[in-house]
Amino acid sequence: MARFLSNTEKSIGKIPGELIFLGKRKSDVIIKLIDYDVKDFLEKELSTIEEALTLKANDSVTWLNLYGLHDTSVIKEIGEKFEIHPLALEDILNTGQRPKMEEYENNLFFSLKMFQINKSENMITSVQISIILGENYLITFQEEAGEVFEPVRKRIRKNKGRVRKNGAGYLVYALLDTIIDNYLVVIGSLGEEIEEFESEVLTNPNKDTLGKIYSFKQEVSYLRKSIRPTKDFIVKLNRIDSDYIQDEALPFLKDLLDLTIQASEATDIYNEILSDQLEMYNSGMNNRLNEIMKVLTIFSVIFIPLTFIAGIYGTNFEYIPELKYRYGYFIFWGVLVITAILMLGFFKRKKWL
Amino acid sequence: MARFLSNTEKSIGKIPGELIFLGKRKSDVIIKLIDYDVKDFLEKELSTIEEALTLKANDSVTWLNLYGLHDTSVIKEIGEKFEIHPLALEDILNTGQRPKMEEYENNLFFSLKMFQINKSENMITSVQISIILGENYLITFQEEAGEVFEPVRKRIRKNKGRVRKNGAGYLVYALLDTIIDNYLVVIGSLGEEIEEFESEVLTNPNKDTLGKIYSFKQEVSYLRKSIRPTKDFIVKLNRIDSDYIQDEALPFLKDLLDLTIQASEATDIYNEILSDQLEMYNSGMNNRLNEIMKVLTIFSVIFIPLTFIAGIYGTNFEYIPELKYRYGYFIFWGVLVITAILMLGFFKRKKWL
Amino acid sequence: MARFLSNTEKSIGKIPGELIFLGKRKSDVIIKLIDYDVKDFLEKELSTIEEALTLKANDSVTWLNLYGLHDTSVIKEIGEKFEIHPLALEDILNTGQRPKMEEYENNLFFSLKMFQINKSENMITSVQISIILGENYLITFQEEAGEVFEPVRKRIRKNKGRVRKNGAGYLVYALLDTIIDNYLVVIGSLGEEIEEFESEVLTNPNKDTLGKIYSFKQEVSYLRKSIRPTKDFIVKLNRIDSDYIQDEALPFLKDLLDLTIQASEATDIYNEILSDQLEMYNSGMNNRLNEIMKVLTIFSVIFIPLTFIAGIYGTNFEYIPELKYRYGYFIFWGVLVITAILMLGFFKRKKWL
Amino acid sequence: MARFLSNTEKSIGKIPGELIFLGKRKSDVIIKLIDYDVKDFLEKELSTIEEALTLKANDSVTWLNLYGLHDTSVIKEIGEKFEIHPLALEDILNTGQRPKMEEYENNLFFSLKMFQINKSENMITSVQISIILGENYLITFQEEAGEVFEPVRKRIRKNKGRVRKNGAGYLVYALLDTIIDNYLVVIGSLGEEIEEFESEVLTNPNKDTLGKIYSFKQEVSYLRKSIRPTKDFIVKLNRIDSDYIQDEALPFLKDLLDLTIQASEATDIYNEILSDQLEMYNSGMNNRLNEIMKVLTIFSVIFIPLTFIAGIYGTNFEYIPELKYRYGYFIFWGVLVITAILMLGFFKRKKWL
Amino acid sequence: MARFLSNTEKSIGKIPGELIFLGKRKSDVIIKLIDYDVKDFLEKELSTIEEALTLKANDSVTWLNLYGLHDTSVIKEIGEKFEIHPLALEDILNTGQRPKMEEYENNLFFSLKMFQINKSENMITSVQISIILGENYLITFQEEAGEVFEPVRKRIRKNKGRVRKNGAGYLVYALLDTIIDNYLVVIGSLGEEIEEFESEVLTNPNKDTLGKIYSFKQEVSYLRKSIRPTKDFIVKLNRIDSDYIQDEALPFLKDLLDLTIQASEATDIYNEILSDQLEMYNSGMNNRLNEIMKVLTIFSVIFIPLTFIAGIYGTNFEYIPELKYRYGYFIFWGVLVITAILMLGFFKRKKWL
Repeated sequence: MARFLSNTEKSIGKIPGELIFLGKRKSDVIIKLIDYDVKDFLEKELSTIEEALTLKANDSVTWLNLYGLHDTSVIKEIGEKFEIHPLALEDILNTGQRPKMEEYENNLFFSLKMFQINKSENMITSVQISIILGENYLITFQEEAGEVFEPVRKRIRKNKGRVRKNGAGYLVYALLDTIIDNYLVVIGSLGEEIEEFESEVLTNPNKDTLGKIYSFKQEVSYLRKSIRPTKDFIVKLNRIDSDYIQDEALPFLKDLLDLTIQASEATDIYNEILSDQLEMYNSGMNNRLNEIMKVLTIFSVIFIPLTFIAGIYGTNFEYIPELKYRYGYFIFWGVLVITAILMLGFFKRKKWL
Repeated sequence: MARFLSNTEKSIGKIPGELIFLGKRKSDVIIKLIDYDVKDFLEKELSTIEEALTLKANDSVTWLNLYGLHDTSVIKEIGEKFEIHPLALEDILNTGQRPKMEEYENNLFFSLKMFQINKSENMITSVQISIILGENYLITFQEEAGEVFEPVRKRIRKNKGRVRKNGAGYLVYALLDTIIDNYLVVIGSLGEEIEEFESEVLTNPNKDTLGKIYSFKQEVSYLRKSIRPTKDFIVKLNRIDSDYIQDEALPFLKDLLDLTIQASEATDIYNEILSDQLEMYNSGMNNRLNEIMKVLTIFSVIFIPLTFIAGIYGTNFEYIPELKYRYGYFIFWGVLVITAILMLGFFKRKKWL
Repeated sequence: MARFLSNTEKSIGKIPGELIFLGKRKSDVIIKLIDYDVKDFLEKELSTIEEALTLKANDSVTWLNLYGLHDTSVIKEIGEKFEIHPLALEDILNTGQRPKMEEYENNLFFSLKMFQINKSENMITSVQISIILGENYLITFQEEAGEVFEPVRKRIRKNKGRVRKNGAGYLVYALLDTIIDNYLVVIGSLGEEIEEFESEVLTNPNKDTLGKIYSFKQEVSYLRKSIRPTKDFIVKLNRIDSDYIQDEALPFLKDLLDLTIQASEATDIYNEILSDQLEMYNSGMNNRLNEIMKVLTIFSVIFIPLTFIAGIYGTNFEYIPELKYRYGYFIFWGVLVITAILMLGFFKRKKWL
Repeated sequence: MARFLSNTEKSIGKIPGELIFLGKRKSDVIIKLIDYDVKDFLEKELSTIEEALTLKANDSVTWLNLYGLHDTSVIKEIGEKFEIHPLALEDILNTGQRPKMEEYENNLFFSLKMFQINKSENMITSVQISIILGENYLITFQEEAGEVFEPVRKRIRKNKGRVRKNGAGYLVYALLDTIIDNYLVVIGSLGEEIEEFESEVLTNPNKDTLGKIYSFKQEVSYLRKSIRPTKDFIVKLNRIDSDYIQDEALPFLKDLLDLTIQASEATDIYNEILSDQLEMYNSGMNNRLNEIMKVLTIFSVIFIPLTFIAGIYGTNFEYIPELKYRYGYFIFWGVLVITAILMLGFFKRKKWL
Repeated sequence: MARFLSNTEKSIGKIPGELIFLGKRKSDVIIKLIDYDVKDFLEKELSTIEEALTLKANDSVTWLNLYGLHDTSVIKEIGEKFEIHPLALEDILNTGQRPKMEEYENNLFFSLKMFQINKSENMITSVQISIILGENYLITFQEEAGEVFEPVRKRIRKNKGRVRKNGAGYLVYALLDTIIDNYLVVIGSLGEEIEEFESEVLTNPNKDTLGKIYSFKQEVSYLRKSIRPTKDFIVKLNRIDSDYIQDEALPFLKDLLDLTIQASEATDIYNEILSDQLEMYNSGMNNRLNEIMKVLTIFSVIFIPLTFIAGIYGTNFEYIPELKYRYGYFIFWGVLVITAILMLGFFKRKKWL
């Protein structure tokens, strides 16, 4: 399957706005609810969406976390209850969606990627996270149950930091911050591998080096593909004037932009470094070839004339005066040694030795 | 013929606005009509354009589908009846037209490409589709009869999705969506081939590999050439304030932009991947050369001195003391073996073995 | 002479606004006049500028075509009579002028290039065409008599197309359209050669291939150098609000922009294709080197040990037991054949055979 | 550790706005105060922040210089006393912060890097400097005590230049000017090394050359990574309309922009020069390979036929007429010499000699 | 010294606005004055600045030309008398200043470079020219006496062209025009060399070719470094609305922009051409290597088997039947010839011959 453009087969002939899950079933449907304000806090697992609606009516912030996207009826119900635009619902179900933010009449929609380092295959994979931000509620959609947002939940539970004191706009910041922090971690970890790889490339290049550089390049491309559009919508997020984002959250969004730019720049730098490494590798291999050819040439150039001289005195001509000399054999050796020394001198002068 | 700039020969000396068909005759002229509103639906093949005009006067959406462009009189008649600008008519007939959207007084004109994968020649070809969007009518022009828009027609017939409930602006979206979905499918299919090709490039590069990379590059270029201007006009389409596009259609157009950007980015990524693959191929071939030269050098460097030594004792000097030794031959063998071992040690130290 | 920056020597120390012809004398001065409106048409060769002035006063469109620029007094006279800005006159005489459009108080000035394919030298050359567009007159300046605008003249004579029905603004469009159509023809013809060249590069690269790619690159650069600034001023032309360009001409100017963009994109694509071809050429040459070295290595590696073995039994040691064996010579042959087979097996395993 | 993206490990799971020092403890906490106006000047080391607050209330400019960031309680106290936004405090403590300027309600925040050339490791390192600019005070935060701002302090002490005559806005300019001057010095010093390296690359390329080019490239990348965002915020600084920057300081900020652009352009140029050097290196190595192969080929091609001829007359056929000739041996030598001369002539014609 | 970033050492620790000459003393201080209006003209060498001030008060245009910058007291005095901003004075003295234009309250400041071709070292050098344009005066600062502006002075003296009829704004245009004309001359001359170099690269590449391409690249980079910022400020100059630039001068400034863009584009084109030449050079060297290896391989592959066969019949086995044949020697020769012919056929089929 094309890793850089997924889900294309399934989406053909689909009616726009039709709800079809385009990913793989990864998890049962679980709906978790957190409801809080500065004073109160409630956390429970829901079996029906109805329960959430009564809480949504309050002033408290209601955070609905949905795991598992294959049951489109649940998605549809949430869509209707929370007045989510059909295109947003469609994007939630299309797990190959390009990261984006969309302003709809009743809420803001975010779609972005969370990266995971797949150690066994030495590959970075991604899962899609969709967020709906409304007046005083927030809904997150994930393909499978995961611990991604656990730190934020902890802060809410323990009332640490600013999260309980602020509205849903701050909560969306906290979630985005968690995701983009994760980008920096993944890039940092990949970057460390790439920077360490430098010494292999420069001092001990071998056959596998090439494949590794190529696969590093693919990973960096894979990251850039998601980080660039994320950066674009964070820029947009800093400029829009939405009711759902409270003024207190604004400086934090600026900080978020800063992080995203840093992530984006880092991928660019690592891309450049990999290109440099490839060039170094190629130059290194060329140097090795030079080295190999030098050895071949030096040996050949020294011994070929010697062998030729030996060949001459191996001929069976009836009259070869040198063969009769008393010290012919030793003179012969002398000629060989002198020839060899002359050749060595030639290479010395050429600075090949 | 220049694949990347076609129809240039025929257009020379043409009077601007003169209607000359610049493509190849591919199909008889067929005119199909679909007329619908939320309640009613009519589908028939027309023999005269007149029939369409009475329907156009109604509030219902009238969709005229014309196959075959070689009969310029038909095009001219439609142009007059539907008040299409002469330049739009000219662009419809020029099958090498660059994708674009143009606002005219009485309608919007779209020209874009539909891709087809020509399996036999392993090449992507394109056909041109032109669309005229007016008050409550839409005319599509195609070079030959095809099933491209069949899914949309089905939805209209069966009243599935939103298409019957919305105006001509939504219908144009549905058609553009079909075309751009096709882009993603074609890119996805090409991309899959390219991604799978990676293993051939890395593990088993051969002569044909080069030609394949080059032809992949050409295909990606060919796609980009059409997708880039398409993206440009979809951006423009999202910004214009046209009477022919109803407000309900706007979020769908945004979604379309999203798809087009995704298509455009994917071609960029595959272009980069192909450049990487070419670099990998070259590096791989260099490694092979190194490998070959190493084998040659090792064999030469080991045997050249041995052959030289054998040559010495093949000389016919009268007095070569070694030849007379009792175990001369065996000592000779000993020298050969030791020399060979020294050479092997030399290569071992150089890490060539 | 520097082909990519011409006329620099002559312009040194020139007083700005001073009229010095910076090209080569290519033609005698000829002044042709065409004067027309919807009904009437007049065509003649003028001997004095005065004749044109009386016609200019009418409502009819007056088109003055001047061939030959070396007689600066004629240029000066026209400049005075038609109130042309001194800088425009200077640009008309500087045949190395960068394509541009300039708005002056009394008229619009256009300077652009017409390409010609010089078949004998296999090189694209260009001649400069300058156009002055005023209220109801148009003056074109060319270095030498040529058929460039003949198709437009024909259309005026025979009253074909829109040209006679529209003002001078449409005429300038018709001329620009002729020139830019010529760009597409030249690019198309070059592009065809480049695309056909692909098979030579891929299947039969040789020494001349390199020089051809380089010269193609130069030609594409040469085209881009003129087409880019032309595109820039056509963009500008679409935005300005000039009295001399009538409203009816506006959609045609948009169409012109479209053509220019197409020309510009095509040069970009062919530039990329040439870079790809060069890469393919290099990779192909590397493959050939690999091939050559493989042949050398296989032959050397097989025969070097065999020659060594033969060398051993060519030595003149007194006691070499093998030499005395009854079937020594045949055993010797057996050893040679087995050694050769082992070597062939070695290459088979390495997949070199 | 990833040099191009630091501190990522520690920041995981951090609550936004939580104050955690993300660098290494490099210095004890020292707080130095300078307070001045045109007439008066005061300099002392503080043990409590309180002392500064009374001075801040005056019209004089108060400059607080803090060394050592590990004691977050001090930072927190300063933050509270001077009303610094929590995100600014967080950025001060994150020593891997991307250079930036941020406008907060009560002050402007700057974060930037100071470069140091680490001679022993031949590497450029950087330390972070954060600046808070308020109404009539300025606070600088540094990881460790250093002489960076000593020249500015001297000028204040001796009342040299404009610094005492202007407000805190001019002081921030003076500090930024010192830092960016340092960029130019570091780039200039690196640039000189790179330009001098040119002769090694062109005349005496060797194995280490490659590693040096790579490490130069890394250093230039490292500089660009900090200089680019610095340039961005200096551009922004020239456009904002802040109360804390007095009008007299504006032309100086323009000058600062000029310096930053110069720094940024210089890194771009050196990056290009390094790419050129790498290309030259590769081309040079290829030339050497050509040279080596030429020597091998010339020797082989001359001696291989000679050895063959000698081999023929070394055969033991019973009847070889040449062997019996009186002057057979000398004719044989003649043939050898003629063959060698023919070969030399062949190479002469090929211009290999 | 770093050629691409100069004067960095001296500027360290400099107080902003402090006047220190950062170049080398190249000339004694000479002050020349030209004062003119349409009717009158005065030219003399001044010993004091005072003289100029009385003339400045008149309506005539006063042009002060200062050669030699090492005497900062003179600069300071001019600065005070003509109310030049301290930062402008500083930039005048910093001969490594990046080209720029700055608007100050009382005048416009221009800093730009004049190129000189240093024939002996085959290098382009530059000198800095600073211009102050005020109400009706203009001051030029040059490092050393030179003939740069002589053509303009001649035109003023002889009242040729427009210069005497227009104000100081036109004079500044005339000077800038002279400088930028010089850019085109220098680029044209370098470009010619580069274009002529093409034939060496393609037909006779040798070791020096590489160094020449590199040095051409450096020269082009050196030119671009100054021309780009010059273009930037000429763009700015065309947009500002300054009192010191009279309306009549505006079309001339546009023309200037045109020239600068042409200069800038030409450097870009020559940069590309040089990159192409380097690629051609590398490809050409690879072809030569192929050629060399082919010669080696053909000779080796033909003679190695022949030598082996000869070796066989050189062995001393007691019983080698072939040796006894009557025509053994001639059959042996036949085998050799047939083997050689087979090898030649093999190469013929491979198209190596």
